[in-house]
Amino acid sequence: MPTLGIDLGGTFARAAVVDAKGNIIASAKMALGERSPSAVVESIAHAAKAAVDTAGTPVQGCGVGAAGQIHGESGVLAVAPNLGWRNVPLGEMLRTRLGYPVRVVNDLSAAAWGELNAGAGRGSQDMYTVFVGSGVGSAIIAGGRLVTGGGGVAGELGHIKVVPNGRRCGCGELGCLEAYAGGHNLIAQTRELLATGRSQVLKELTGGDPARVTPVTLEQAAEAGDAEAREIYERASLMLAVAVANQVTVLNPARLILGGGVLTHCPGIRRRVVEGVQAFASTTSREGLLISDAELGDDSGLIGAALLA
Amino acid sequence: MPTLGIDLGGTFARAAVVDAKGNIIASAKMALGERSPSAVVESIAHAAKAAVDTAGTPVQGCGVGAAGQIHGESGVLAVAPNLGWRNVPLGEMLRTRLGYPVRVVNDLSAAAWGELNAGAGRGSQDMYTVFVGSGVGSAIIAGGRLVTGGGGVAGELGHIKVVPNGRRCGCGELGCLEAYAGGHNLIAQTRELLATGRSQVLKELTGGDPARVTPVTLEQAAEAGDAEAREIYERASLMLAVAVANQVTVLNPARLILGGGVLTHCPGIRRRVVEGVQAFASTTSREGLLISDAELGDDSGLIGAALLA
Repeated sequence: MPTLGIDLGGTFARAAVVDAKGNIIASAKMALGERSPSAVVESIAHAAKAAVDTAGTPVQGCGVGAAGQIHGESGVLAVAPNLGWRNVPLGEMLRTRLGYPVRVVNDLSAAAWGELNAGAGRGSQDMYTVFVGSGVGSAIIAGGRLVTGGGGVAGELGHIKVVPNGRRCGCGELGCLEAYAGGHNLIAQTRELLATGRSQVLKELTGGDPARVTPVTLEQAAEAGDAEAREIYERASLMLAVAVANQVTVLNPARLILGGGVLTHCPGIRRRVVEGVQAFASTTSREGLLISDAELGDDSGLIGAALLA
Repeated sequence: MPTLGIDLGGTFARAAVVDAKGNIIASAKMALGERSPSAVVESIAHAAKAAVDTAGTPVQGCGVGAAGQIHGESGVLAVAPNLGWRNVPLGEMLRTRLGYPVRVVNDLSAAAWGELNAGAGRGSQDMYTVFVGSGVGSAIIAGGRLVTGGGGVAGELGHIKVVPNGRRCGCGELGCLEAYAGGHNLIAQTRELLATGRSQVLKELTGGDPARVTPVTLEQAAEAGDAEAREIYERASLMLAVAVANQVTVLNPARLILGGGVLTHCPGIRRRVVEGVQAFASTTSREGLLISDAELGDDSGLIGAALLA
């Protein structure tokens, strides 16, 4: 019987009815209005009902991928920064509202599970997935099982320290990988450079408008030979490359899956990460390693959540 | 029924009959003579027979912890540098010789499994074990299961890159953590400093004899205020601390177990690693983290191998 997958972001809840092979039968999307837990549960329930009604088939369980920290198998969302939540028993609330068994996992874990079972990781048991979007995250699958960690927050690659006491990260700590190489911080660093007025290339690319800066702008400025843009760009790429390579060394995955907006839209950064894994991961750990791009795009979390149900 | 554990090092084979709780009933040790696979299998078989005879109880299976790279569950020792072996089907050879089912795992995995079930990790499901001895290694247990990696070499913390294109490591690669912070390389760096003649403190501590240099000598020289010794020492300690902290961030273990000669005999390095985990691991990943020392010493591998049988 199909299952229901929920992808809970900061602005939308998406729901999909998914078959056992990971095909989406029907889906629905609902904007989140008020962010109180009960209002969000209602939004999810509406999206779920729409998806189930469209599919015209009963479902036997529900999986939820949510951005935030989930405490083990409890279904409790300990911290969800996008929603401003702390210790919300989302699993239990949804179980009561929907009448299905509900499992709540981290959104990147759900996405990795989707890729493992219906995307780029098919046939694999040991897979490491790295997402570089506005932030930097990862998910570990070992022996065919999701590694969640003792506190449910395994995979926080963005918050490893690459410069002890370095640049301040959005998490409040200093020197995190994300503070240098996450999309949000790539934009911030590029805007800082634009604001100095020293980069003619950046001025031309953006018309002087900081709002037009994206990670792609930085890649273009670096490729156009702007020395300071290049420094930010090469530093971020090298840090990402070494960080990913080091996780390949420690985890020895059979597959490395790359996803997220920055790796998708900045081919130069993606190339440096791939080449960096070849250069910096230990020889034995990358024997037989297959590197590929995530295949399911935005649907990976929905599909993975449903398959985890 | 008890099982048999084998610890296969570079110079000795040890065997122990171990009960289901991880208590050693009897053990035996056999020096390795010739290093050919068949000769080593004979040495193991002798040690095994001695242990079983002494215990006076039948055993129902055998686990082997061996220094080297093991291909998954095949029992094939792909690379064993200490023995100069490549692709030796140790599991099958021992099964034939001993008449028990045999499971072969990496020596650090066996040691971690011992600590999990009968030592410092008891009661834990998510545990990260770091050994700093002559080399630097680690073992990951997630959800109560050993993480071996796709190629059987997960845990190679010593070969993450801490200085891209830095100091040459014994593995042939550049800039590995082990090249700065492994005991063998702490000694090498201290000897290099001694050879310059610039360090009066080192001269006094060793009588000028490079053979008397140990990691403890380096710690003593650093604590005595020798600036160059202190630089080597603090750099190594910081690199270890950040590396371990970053794995705590990514793996989110409930327990961190520290073992190996350097961490046991150099309390200053151990303290810097513990403080570094507090300083550099992400706040969420170290909530509830328990840090402790390995408890079983040299027996952890024997006990773990037996319990994995």
